Amino acid sequence: MTETAPGRRGPKRSEQSRSAILAAAFEVTAEVGYRALTVEGIALRAGVGKQTVYRWWPSKADVLLEALAVRADVEVSVDDRGSYRVELEEFCRDSFALLSVPGVAAALRGLMAEAQLGPDFGTRFRSGFLQRRRAALAEVLRRAHERGDAPHVAPDELVTDLVFGAIWYRLLATDRPLSETDVSALCDLLGAAPAAP
Amino acid sequence: MTETAPGRRGPKRSEQSRSAILAAAFEVTAEVGYRALTVEGIALRAGVGKQTVYRWWPSKADVLLEALAVRADVEVSVDDRGSYRVELEEFCRDSFALLSVPGVAAALRGLMAEAQLGPDFGTRFRSGFLQRRRAALAEVLRRAHERGDAPHVAPDELVTDLVFGAIWYRLLATDRPLSETDVSALCDLLGAAPAAP
Repeated sequence: MTETAPGRRGPKRSEQSRSAILAAAFEVTAEVGYRALTVEGIALRAGVGKQTVYRWWPSKADVLLEALAVRADVEVSVDDRGSYRVELEEFCRDSFALLSVPGVAAALRGLMAEAQLGPDFGTRFRSGFLQRRRAALAEVLRRAHERGDAPHVAPDELVTDLVFGAIWYRLLATDRPLSETDVSALCDLLGAAPAAP
Repeated sequence: MTETAPGRRGPKRSEQSRSAILAAAFEVTAEVGYRALTVEGIALRAGVGKQTVYRWWPSKADVLLEALAVRADVEVSVDDRGSYRVELEEFCRDSFALLSVPGVAAALRGLMAEAQLGPDFGTRFRSGFLQRRRAALAEVLRRAHERGDAPHVAPDELVTDLVFGAIWYRLLATDRPLSETDVSALCDLLGAAPAAP
């Protein structure tokens, strides 16, 4: 029997090829945009064959999905800082900072578009990325409830919708990136008292 | 010289054909979805020739854009109710109600996707729909400032981003429609004191 990782299409992947493919996906997106991105272009940049990409991912969108999920897990902190306000602000700042990594904003816009147009990819994008980001913020909220320093300004689900809603709406509907001032105002609104100096 | 309405491609449109085309665009979208919608399908349903549609709109997305803009102007109230809280809640409720009109949610998802993939349509969607919706909410906020009953919980721009962010994020990223409870919680959070009975 062929050895397969859970949820993967093909045999166990070489970690080196995987990393090269995920990095290449961002690089090529940054250079040519989402529409002009192709599996061929990713493979060429990563120094692997096209079939190596297709063995593990069904489409260019799925390569970017995994690249984004991994990157967000690494770069958006959900570490315990002892304060809801500090953690919420860090979560928002890290999330917005991620958008300025070359290729990331274009990839997110492209994947959200694909998710609307193709229901199968939409399901994968929700479970593999959107739900995963919600789960990360839920961890911050869960710890705040345990600690007792999350002021109840709205149900957790709505707080989560507002944080991600602001990020996504700014990205998809406007040319204005979220600023430091916006992050502070959002965290003030969500009811977290300023952290002690 | 041919008589043209501002921003239109062709000569003055027959109001009857225009209404039939806009109504047909929603109907067909509700039946077959955004991807399977075609200009031919819209024309057939509206009882006009395909060239009549193309004379006035460059694509199926542009027909839906105008249909959505007109519908939102009509159905989302920005009337003076004498209270920011009442007007904000009415604005949100009307906006969410619009999403349950057959074809509207699918049309919005399709157009936001097109806007990400095609920069030209993206520009038209922002100015013709997204900015127009922001302007409607800005009217409610402007009146509240004049009246003096808008509590300052966040800058107007951010309040606007949060209202539309919640609507769009729920639509694009989740299967959960905004409920009455969500609308109340959102309006509570945005700082409006409950209206006097």
